[in-house]
Amino acid sequence: MEFRLIDRIRERTALLRDDVRLGIGDDAALLAVPAGQELAVAIDTMVEGVHFLSGTAPAELGWKALAVNLSDLAAMGASPAWAMLALTLPGEASVEAQALFVDGLAEGFAELAQAHRLALVGGDTTRGPLTLSVAVHGFVPPGQALRRAGAQVGDAILVTGTLGDAAAGLRLLQDGQGSVDAAANYLIGRLHRPTPRVMTGLALRSRASACIDISDGLLADLAHVCAASGVAAELEAAALPCSPALLEKCAAQVAREFALSGGDDYELCFTVPAERLDAVREVLRGCEGGATVIGRIVAGSGVRVRDEDGHWLTPQRRGWEHFA
Amino acid sequence: MEFRLIDRIRERTALLRDDVRLGIGDDAALLAVPAGQELAVAIDTMVEGVHFLSGTAPAELGWKALAVNLSDLAAMGASPAWAMLALTLPGEASVEAQALFVDGLAEGFAELAQAHRLALVGGDTTRGPLTLSVAVHGFVPPGQALRRAGAQVGDAILVTGTLGDAAAGLRLLQDGQGSVDAAANYLIGRLHRPTPRVMTGLALRSRASACIDISDGLLADLAHVCAASGVAAELEAAALPCSPALLEKCAAQVAREFALSGGDDYELCFTVPAERLDAVREVLRGCEGGATVIGRIVAGSGVRVRDEDGHWLTPQRRGWEHFA
Repeated sequence: MEFRLIDRIRERTALLRDDVRLGIGDDAALLAVPAGQELAVAIDTMVEGVHFLSGTAPAELGWKALAVNLSDLAAMGASPAWAMLALTLPGEASVEAQALFVDGLAEGFAELAQAHRLALVGGDTTRGPLTLSVAVHGFVPPGQALRRAGAQVGDAILVTGTLGDAAAGLRLLQDGQGSVDAAANYLIGRLHRPTPRVMTGLALRSRASACIDISDGLLADLAHVCAASGVAAELEAAALPCSPALLEKCAAQVAREFALSGGDDYELCFTVPAERLDAVREVLRGCEGGATVIGRIVAGSGVRVRDEDGHWLTPQRRGWEHFA
Repeated sequence: MEFRLIDRIRERTALLRDDVRLGIGDDAALLAVPAGQELAVAIDTMVEGVHFLSGTAPAELGWKALAVNLSDLAAMGASPAWAMLALTLPGEASVEAQALFVDGLAEGFAELAQAHRLALVGGDTTRGPLTLSVAVHGFVPPGQALRRAGAQVGDAILVTGTLGDAAAGLRLLQDGQGSVDAAANYLIGRLHRPTPRVMTGLALRSRASACIDISDGLLADLAHVCAASGVAAELEAAALPCSPALLEKCAAQVAREFALSGGDDYELCFTVPAERLDAVREVLRGCEGGATVIGRIVAGSGVRVRDEDGHWLTPQRRGWEHFA
């Protein structure tokens, strides 16, 4: 059965890339990295009941498992090339149910892969608790990758898109309020089908001083940038970009907490020296999601948030930590 | 906690490789593939209760999770370079128990990694059912990789090392007969700490006509070579290499079944044109495990096994299939 599962995925994700010298079907794939490019690699796992709710549609899982990895490449300013998927599926389901599941998963995965000209070059399917691990590979010219270290005192802090939508979508699903209206659908869609900001990451090469993607929540992830860069961050709560749907479904206070700590947004948070800010804004005009200035880098350590009245906030949660 | 877990692994597996431009700790690692080399990549997952028994020591898991992936590189004739590890750990255990587990895992992983000058460049730890996914990267000169396709009628079929040990070790553990004597220890060690035949794979570049590693069992894996090459295989049961420990602990008939179908051996099975056989034997003299001729490639399809009296055998199992 293993090989039939992989075949289903391969059929839907096969892409003509002349840098794939040997694709799925042997003990390893053979790939050609373009001369003069560094290889950027990352791996991320999603476990049922931990990273997604039981009963999530397989197409959403396929999309998201790839999206969270593409988001890592985006945060490095790397252009996506290849992925490998390790899928663990419960053995209790009937063969037909498994085939349907894998079809759906392949469809969601392939849709996003095709949008980024990414080829699936490796696969492994095993029996066990529902888990998806994806490893991604991308390219970046030497010296141009975006890192967490590099933020300087005085830099502006920006985020792409809007924050807090995914956390609100999760809350709606947990409260049994899925798909009740357009705003709910939007928020749940943001949870299930995040948009990795690949184009923005490419546009920020050599322009941003530091970058990270927001998976655990803005406060937690920006804290990594601050720690790696040896600086502190001050955020303006009033500047946090929130979607109309989020503000429609949540009280302002809840929306703010979701935006600060919700996680699962897969937007980019990055820093830009003041003198380059206008140029970066101009470049990002063409990128889906745009970007918003939400604060600035200061001396010290940690992340602080100021409310509209100039008071320092004490957020309820600092983002989601594994094994916390 | 996630970052502390990864730090523990990193501390023990950090290796100086100047091709790792940026290691663990950012959104992706940055790597430099040597000019003129292709990248070989593979991914494999081990799930508790499916690929290993509950209660297996973490050091054995760390070793084996890497070993099965290095075995894939060996089967391609690729030299190992980098790995990424996605670890899912049950959240119920205490933080101390988790730390002990991760320490053990890192130790086993690092021991094998160091032996092959392999660097861990990516990690992801999540909460959930115990699962280890490893992605490996290696190098191979263009055109020199060993593939499953390529076996020709008349080629000799060889295997490295001995077969059936891991299956016998598993049987002993399942029967509650672990570590009763030296032979049992040997077989259980072969199950827990397989030796990926990396040196042999490198030596077979441009010499073997086809190659695969034996994970699912000789019959199942050799069948993949035959299918990919459009040929059939005839094996001589009397030629199957069995360890003294296997023959001590198992009846001859059982030892044969284990050797043919047991799986988890991670030896290489490869084919060599008759005119190159002496040269290959000479080259492999310096490789741990050596190699034994066990049959030949013939026209047709499938794999057949002949016993000492010239009768065709009907094996009890054709190897372990996921979701079978």
